[in-house]
Amino acid sequence: MRSFEKSYQLFDRASKVIPGGIPGHQSPTLLVFGSSPCFIERAEGSHIWDVDGNEYIDYMCGYGPMVIGYNHPKVEAAARAQSTLVDTCNLPSERYVELAERLVGLIPIADWAIFGKNGSDVTTYACRVARARTGRNKIVMVEGSYHGIGAWCISFTTGITPEEQASVLKFDYNDIEGFTRLIDENKDDIAGVILTPFRHEAFHDSEMPAAGFLETVRATCDDIGAVFIVDDVRAGFRMHMGGSLEKFNVKPDLICFSKALGNGHPISACVGSESMKDAASQAFFTGSFFTSSAPMAAAMATLDEMEATDAVQIMYDRGEMLKDGLLDQADAYEQEVHYTGPEPIPFMTFATEDGWDRSKLFCEECYERGVFFHPFHNWFISAAHTEEDIKKTLEVTDAAFKRVKTEMG
Amino acid sequence: MRSFEKSYQLFDRASKVIPGGIPGHQSPTLLVFGSSPCFIERAEGSHIWDVDGNEYIDYMCGYGPMVIGYNHPKVEAAARAQSTLVDTCNLPSERYVELAERLVGLIPIADWAIFGKNGSDVTTYACRVARARTGRNKIVMVEGSYHGIGAWCISFTTGITPEEQASVLKFDYNDIEGFTRLIDENKDDIAGVILTPFRHEAFHDSEMPAAGFLETVRATCDDIGAVFIVDDVRAGFRMHMGGSLEKFNVKPDLICFSKALGNGHPISACVGSESMKDAASQAFFTGSFFTSSAPMAAAMATLDEMEATDAVQIMYDRGEMLKDGLLDQADAYEQEVHYTGPEPIPFMTFATEDGWDRSKLFCEECYERGVFFHPFHNWFISAAHTEEDIKKTLEVTDAAFKRVKTEMG
Repeated sequence: MRSFEKSYQLFDRASKVIPGGIPGHQSPTLLVFGSSPCFIERAEGSHIWDVDGNEYIDYMCGYGPMVIGYNHPKVEAAARAQSTLVDTCNLPSERYVELAERLVGLIPIADWAIFGKNGSDVTTYACRVARARTGRNKIVMVEGSYHGIGAWCISFTTGITPEEQASVLKFDYNDIEGFTRLIDENKDDIAGVILTPFRHEAFHDSEMPAAGFLETVRATCDDIGAVFIVDDVRAGFRMHMGGSLEKFNVKPDLICFSKALGNGHPISACVGSESMKDAASQAFFTGSFFTSSAPMAAAMATLDEMEATDAVQIMYDRGEMLKDGLLDQADAYEQEVHYTGPEPIPFMTFATEDGWDRSKLFCEECYERGVFFHPFHNWFISAAHTEEDIKKTLEVTDAAFKRVKTEMG
Repeated sequence: MRSFEKSYQLFDRASKVIPGGIPGHQSPTLLVFGSSPCFIERAEGSHIWDVDGNEYIDYMCGYGPMVIGYNHPKVEAAARAQSTLVDTCNLPSERYVELAERLVGLIPIADWAIFGKNGSDVTTYACRVARARTGRNKIVMVEGSYHGIGAWCISFTTGITPEEQASVLKFDYNDIEGFTRLIDENKDDIAGVILTPFRHEAFHDSEMPAAGFLETVRATCDDIGAVFIVDDVRAGFRMHMGGSLEKFNVKPDLICFSKALGNGHPISACVGSESMKDAASQAFFTGSFFTSSAPMAAAMATLDEMEATDAVQIMYDRGEMLKDGLLDQADAYEQEVHYTGPEPIPFMTFATEDGWDRSKLFCEECYERGVFFHPFHNWFISAAHTEEDIKKTLEVTDAAFKRVKTEMG
């Protein structure tokens, strides 16, 4: 049996000096508490080691940021070379211009880019740009969708006033009729519509956009003069290098990126079309570290390496191999599962009505045998995952399915 | 004459692909546009070099983050050693607990800490904690005070709805009577009062707290059961290692830090007293890079070095030397100036009614001769500024005062 002793000793220490111990999406209480680690000691490529020395093939990738491997030599070399010159200073470095030009060259809809630190920074900024562009206030979003911790969108409303959420209208994902009705009833007030490229909420199977859904949103925004915003913070640079909606041949007006852009270095970006640029310059957007150069150098090295190695295709291939293997095993052990999401950002749940116990047991056995999955949140494949990683993973998952079958039938 | 040719070529390129070229507080249009640089190539200790190769003794310190010298060997070594192990991952590393414990040990009012990336992250979080703690909604702040880009507080309201600012009440800085009246009229609704340790708005002389002002705020918050929040993002770790209000022997309930905490590495923190901890755990707070370990290692190395070298005292000493020299020169050239703010975070304006022309001319001559001041925004001293730096600076400012006297009388 693996020991997580040091993890839980540290978690006790954390709980004394940090509200919630580890608050937010990384809370170990959202994993299989007691049977999964709480703290990480080391990460390299597609593997991580917890503070008790247990090694894992990692399928969370830092909840998305790691896309071509932890501690990637080219990315780290670029960041270090830049930080030796200048990182945070009074003014940006040339990297600032280079990265904006790089994104404009890479992303079909992008005529400009602007940089922040958090995904929340740019999703909130995009809403302000939409308001500045249209002179209207309402933002339309999907019920339950996560766009960060901005007061306007957060579903955990402790400390949020009702007024802060008053300008948001919600509809159900993929409900084209409901969306059209909401728009009809409010069209003179709507500044923008914000969507993730597919629905990827925690504690839910992922859902791909229904036929005609994205096209309807695009056409409707054109009709009423509203701004179509894509929150590509989680999915960006895993489905397509030019923004995830390129997979569906639909063109939004603004796209928000973060996570994978710097392979773990802290950076976010909003890009947009030329028609949005004036409005974008009117919405005030600044922060102490928004122009820091080392994460920009890291981002350029990440994009270069991804293009040079066709990293997105690697992630689709590895993701397909994992999916095929897991679905075969589910069949063999007579487990009905839902395997959802695009191959590089998959999620598997057990299609039973008895809650999450099978998912937790499955993940518990995986932690025990050295594979890091998440019971409640979508997973992430990286381009650093090798075929050998997937093979080893499938040996582990075979044992995990077997345990689920044995203990729960 | 110094050339800024490459800076302005790059700014033209930036303007094509970034709304506003360089948006926000670092816009070169807020310096002496045409006579000051737009992009930085290198930074070391207290000196910076722009992209045209011009060297400056720097008095902006990245608008605050640099506190013990750019590219500090101990800070960079700590960050690099940590990033080789793990930076952004699925869970935090042990550094996360260590830094929280370090801040709790260092800051008298702190029984806990929580981490973000931007100053805005933690000022906005602190308001949510105050609401969670009190069950009330109103936040009291100083008219014109800058607490980041959160919708609730931002004075640039493009893209912000009136409702997003509806729960904020404002009073004039140091107006004890006005503050007391505002509280009396709203006391059942007030969740918290947020203040910077002194008033340090751009385009204004800085103002220190009036006698009894901070004590009144503390006593009033106690009376009505509201939370006293200090926004120490800009001043933190320059006036006192234990939070700037320690200088005044006043104890807030929550303190927000960022900028200097990591000597340029991106991190922010909110710390608070034990009585706030339950509420702090209820307000949802998370971000993709909030638990990244390299900036935490950098922060601990920064705090260690500051304590070992008495960095705050060095900044007061250097700041006093600069202040004495500048005031002597102002006298000698018959220029009436206002020299305001604490010694490590000073600001000098020309006390005339003809706008900012003297400040701009003064700064222009300083840029030309290799000293980086700001005409409109407070300056920052660091512990890397040597007596030799100050001496050289005063030679430059002598010439700058002379030019102001010659051209403007």
